[in-house]
Amino acid sequence: MGRAVRLSVAGVGNNVSALLQGVYFYADLVQNGHDEYKLPGIKNPRIGDIAVSAVKFVGAFDVDPGKIGKDLRDAIVTPPNNYPRLAADVPVQDVLVEPGIENDGGESMVTAVTKSLIESGTEVLLYSLPTGRQHLAELYARAALDAGVAFVNCTPENIARDPALLSDFQEAGLPLVGDDLASHLGTSVVHRALLQLLGERGITMTSSYQLNVGGNEDFRNLLVSGSSKRTSKLNALAQAGIETSNIVMVPSAAFIPHLGDRKVAMVNIEGVGWGQQTVSLDVLLKVQDSSNAAGVIIDLVRIAAVSLREGTAGFPRAAIAMLKSPPIGTNGRA
Amino acid sequence: MGRAVRLSVAGVGNNVSALLQGVYFYADLVQNGHDEYKLPGIKNPRIGDIAVSAVKFVGAFDVDPGKIGKDLRDAIVTPPNNYPRLAADVPVQDVLVEPGIENDGGESMVTAVTKSLIESGTEVLLYSLPTGRQHLAELYARAALDAGVAFVNCTPENIARDPALLSDFQEAGLPLVGDDLASHLGTSVVHRALLQLLGERGITMTSSYQLNVGGNEDFRNLLVSGSSKRTSKLNALAQAGIETSNIVMVPSAAFIPHLGDRKVAMVNIEGVGWGQQTVSLDVLLKVQDSSNAAGVIIDLVRIAAVSLREGTAGFPRAAIAMLKSPPIGTNGRA
Amino acid sequence: MGRAVRLSVAGVGNNVSALLQGVYFYADLVQNGHDEYKLPGIKNPRIGDIAVSAVKFVGAFDVDPGKIGKDLRDAIVTPPNNYPRLAADVPVQDVLVEPGIENDGGESMVTAVTKSLIESGTEVLLYSLPTGRQHLAELYARAALDAGVAFVNCTPENIARDPALLSDFQEAGLPLVGDDLASHLGTSVVHRALLQLLGERGITMTSSYQLNVGGNEDFRNLLVSGSSKRTSKLNALAQAGIETSNIVMVPSAAFIPHLGDRKVAMVNIEGVGWGQQTVSLDVLLKVQDSSNAAGVIIDLVRIAAVSLREGTAGFPRAAIAMLKSPPIGTNGRA
Amino acid sequence: MGRAVRLSVAGVGNNVSALLQGVYFYADLVQNGHDEYKLPGIKNPRIGDIAVSAVKFVGAFDVDPGKIGKDLRDAIVTPPNNYPRLAADVPVQDVLVEPGIENDGGESMVTAVTKSLIESGTEVLLYSLPTGRQHLAELYARAALDAGVAFVNCTPENIARDPALLSDFQEAGLPLVGDDLASHLGTSVVHRALLQLLGERGITMTSSYQLNVGGNEDFRNLLVSGSSKRTSKLNALAQAGIETSNIVMVPSAAFIPHLGDRKVAMVNIEGVGWGQQTVSLDVLLKVQDSSNAAGVIIDLVRIAAVSLREGTAGFPRAAIAMLKSPPIGTNGRA
Repeated sequence: MGRAVRLSVAGVGNNVSALLQGVYFYADLVQNGHDEYKLPGIKNPRIGDIAVSAVKFVGAFDVDPGKIGKDLRDAIVTPPNNYPRLAADVPVQDVLVEPGIENDGGESMVTAVTKSLIESGTEVLLYSLPTGRQHLAELYARAALDAGVAFVNCTPENIARDPALLSDFQEAGLPLVGDDLASHLGTSVVHRALLQLLGERGITMTSSYQLNVGGNEDFRNLLVSGSSKRTSKLNALAQAGIETSNIVMVPSAAFIPHLGDRKVAMVNIEGVGWGQQTVSLDVLLKVQDSSNAAGVIIDLVRIAAVSLREGTAGFPRAAIAMLKSPPIGTNGRA
Repeated sequence: MGRAVRLSVAGVGNNVSALLQGVYFYADLVQNGHDEYKLPGIKNPRIGDIAVSAVKFVGAFDVDPGKIGKDLRDAIVTPPNNYPRLAADVPVQDVLVEPGIENDGGESMVTAVTKSLIESGTEVLLYSLPTGRQHLAELYARAALDAGVAFVNCTPENIARDPALLSDFQEAGLPLVGDDLASHLGTSVVHRALLQLLGERGITMTSSYQLNVGGNEDFRNLLVSGSSKRTSKLNALAQAGIETSNIVMVPSAAFIPHLGDRKVAMVNIEGVGWGQQTVSLDVLLKVQDSSNAAGVIIDLVRIAAVSLREGTAGFPRAAIAMLKSPPIGTNGRA
Repeated sequence: MGRAVRLSVAGVGNNVSALLQGVYFYADLVQNGHDEYKLPGIKNPRIGDIAVSAVKFVGAFDVDPGKIGKDLRDAIVTPPNNYPRLAADVPVQDVLVEPGIENDGGESMVTAVTKSLIESGTEVLLYSLPTGRQHLAELYARAALDAGVAFVNCTPENIARDPALLSDFQEAGLPLVGDDLASHLGTSVVHRALLQLLGERGITMTSSYQLNVGGNEDFRNLLVSGSSKRTSKLNALAQAGIETSNIVMVPSAAFIPHLGDRKVAMVNIEGVGWGQQTVSLDVLLKVQDSSNAAGVIIDLVRIAAVSLREGTAGFPRAAIAMLKSPPIGTNGRA
Repeated sequence: MGRAVRLSVAGVGNNVSALLQGVYFYADLVQNGHDEYKLPGIKNPRIGDIAVSAVKFVGAFDVDPGKIGKDLRDAIVTPPNNYPRLAADVPVQDVLVEPGIENDGGESMVTAVTKSLIESGTEVLLYSLPTGRQHLAELYARAALDAGVAFVNCTPENIARDPALLSDFQEAGLPLVGDDLASHLGTSVVHRALLQLLGERGITMTSSYQLNVGGNEDFRNLLVSGSSKRTSKLNALAQAGIETSNIVMVPSAAFIPHLGDRKVAMVNIEGVGWGQQTVSLDVLLKVQDSSNAAGVIIDLVRIAAVSLREGTAGFPRAAIAMLKSPPIGTNGRA
């Protein structure tokens, strides 16, 4: 199943909980005779020769005092994390969560992370902090550079799109993957598919909206700071050639604690067909939010590792379709 | 807007009501200054040079005593027809509904239809009887052949796929369009788009169903005889590469008179993503059933007319995407 | 059909548009032979002997320069008003919209309104400004008192619940109706009915939420100031004996301009039954927002008129069920 | 928790699976310190003094060769049974499934069942065969009479409503509970609550329908024989004073195997309010079908046992609200 990727994580939230538990969940399935090429919820059984379960966690960083010092196995189920427990035995990882870089943290913190990455033999550093911490994302990217490891940025922060950083990784012979992962099955991808379908069929869209609600920290954060995400969702539709003036996007219409890590999305599309007769579509989409992320992270991490091992530096083209804002791609930007 | 297509219709049901009213509805819009290239619900403003409203009804056949002898304008709103009245003034057509061919009708009836088609200067005969009358479809096709007019078959009856008939049209230098029109925005096309999306994203579909309810005669008929339509819907998915063993299709789950010509469809898809966590999609689709047909018929009729005028005989390739069972196309059949 | 209520309105928004157009819509129906006791959407054909259409608009106040000076018939369809045009001919009312009281308006404005109410022979003053203008509501109530007319407060402002004001109306022999009208079919009443049903049946509710979206000014306002409405919605459930700790209410999850005066609500309830097996309910409710208000205003206005004519002062008990915050009622407060 | 009810069951389907597993599930909860008076999904913690978990299975009858001879614990999970496994350890019951009465079974079979009921010390016989076997229901009731045990009929068969049978039980001093249990949270009870709410508010209902789909044997059976259930559902609404001419009920719109014992119901209501503006409600209800039955059976069984122990013969009034067709009750029949 390929040599396991040696992975460190910056941010021990639900996504890392989903990723770690999932790795053991799929390992169990395969061990119990399940066909590795027909695993439920897996698009790419192997990337290079690396299997889904071939990920070894070797380092973790977080600023939450409730998580620091705990074995990663225990830290991932510490509140406010609320991803469900999968039906998998996750053994002690022998990885204690180390203090992460803080906003006012100086050079010494970056040095500490760099040192830790080197000592643990990390191949890939996964950056998965809450959205909106551009400065911290840059510091972690810098630590990865200094340690000589690949970097994966799951968030919308400007890292792979930063020409200076990208060129530094390129010169250092290191892969840089980002920015902003596209969910496994996100609301916007469903919304876009339906809007495109209407367009292809000749139905005139007259109005549309998308509401998302959930109970994890993302939804609490986005309630107040969702406008950049709102714009980015509209941009994504516009790039697909869809007229967006009658479309309203609400990334977090409500923080609903009892939903936990579940996300519920409501998509409405109204249109008219022959004789201006109305057509309406109402979609109710229910997903496990962090599974939606981990299902893509598993591919980005393996792409980064394969690139590193092959000696391919910079941004790997294989990652384009899994990212919302790649440095190159649909926009033709280089 | 191009010379108007001279159209005769076999069967004066909701589809013809939608078509006739719509032609005047769009003519009004354009006359009132609406941009002809941005008409609501119209995919192809012109086919050849023929505009949407460039259709002149010159003949009509039906077996319903309540419709025979009426001007077409009045026949289209005679029950059980229940397509809504569009906001358009439909003038007297000076076309009286003539007696249609009946099952036990002999050669004389076909001759009468042929004669009428010739005398009215018909270019295209649209066949739009209720599903399941293979023999009548053949007789009308024969009348079209004899009269030297193009033939459009909206129904699943085997006409364009009948090699003998197709070759007769070819030899006579006449276009033959069919079989079974694909709705403007049908339930199955939405269902398929979503199933394909899940597949592309790597979500494993675990189960799915589709229920349709409506209040026009189709839904009453399909309640008892829906199994062939059920199979054809599953086949369409299978041809798109979708595993259908966990999919249930119900073309008519209920005849609900008060819905009139409205159709409501419910589509459910369940799947699993990373860590086998569930994903569910419930779609509620509401459409005007006969607008859904007329929005495609308008294109098939114009394709037939353009082919006739250009002298292109047989099945026109431009119609492939608008048909469920074309004689050539996705199935690689010639 | 009883002597027509002479009505003046403070605030010429969608509610007044719905009320005025509706009065003529129902008058037309009855004149065309429709049974007055089976009118669509009408709960109380007569209150006292006053019919639904027995309302004569005699005065109107607003601060919008686009509405002041216009005949009421034209003011009600002036943007941002966006209630649809009903299928009714509304004649010129011979009522010009007068300048309403402004926040910094002094005693002279109140005097002007009082004078106008007297001169127009007003029986009832309907207060229907946007939510959140307590001071203006008090000034209009004072003008009604001075003019000797009944007062109906549709908004959550504290008027009928203000003991001093209520006692002033009582002593003046005038009816005072308020506060905060309960919608004809509001989201909360549907939500509560379903929660109560689950409770009665022995299903344990584990979580629930309610999201409302719309395109009129209310939804734009509530986006930023919805928290008091959120609390009031939870209180209403709590008073009905429902445990609210797992319930989230979002009065305005999004302002969606293209919805116009339509409101869409999504209600979700999750629960468990025997063996802790899950039960889920998802409701999609679509209503015309201002019809939802006018359908109750028509009753409050008639109750106020009947009370005035009968000489019954203070708060009329008949209005309790149509208000969210009556001065007496479910809470046993006097 | 009261002396355990000694229960025998006729028919070992999903309902009995839910009942047996649930009894142990709740016993576990209480043993682990859960408050007996706040059990999830339980309306009546005690009936008489009998707790939810105070049911001891002492006999079982079925005609399925795959179930006969098995311990009840294993028989309840034998296909086509597909109720899920609850998180409860169900121990061996020391109750082997005995051959049930067959249609052509003579007096000897009844005698065998009677003998078994006496020897096992049964207090209550629960009749829970598939719908439509009137003759078998009568034979089992007869066996209960002969053995001197109480009888509970979950099905629509005519037992408690049969005056002769009821009087026989009365004379024998035995309780008789039936007919046709009302689900814990059935589609019809939700449908009725919403229709009544609209009526109370003065919204005029214009049309409504209800579709149910599921994957257990009931849904396969009802596909072909659902018309009596359809009528009974309409009757229930009519008795609640609801005009049913515009309502369509579809007890089984589709048999969808992959749903297993889950049931999905779609309820639509269209209406008009003020100014004849439309109101629409679409409800998606998902329940565990057999939990929906077992949650009521647990009460009927305890009511029967309490009556027997108190010496109250005939139909116990306490059961009225839990039955669709009680011999007395809402219909005023005695």
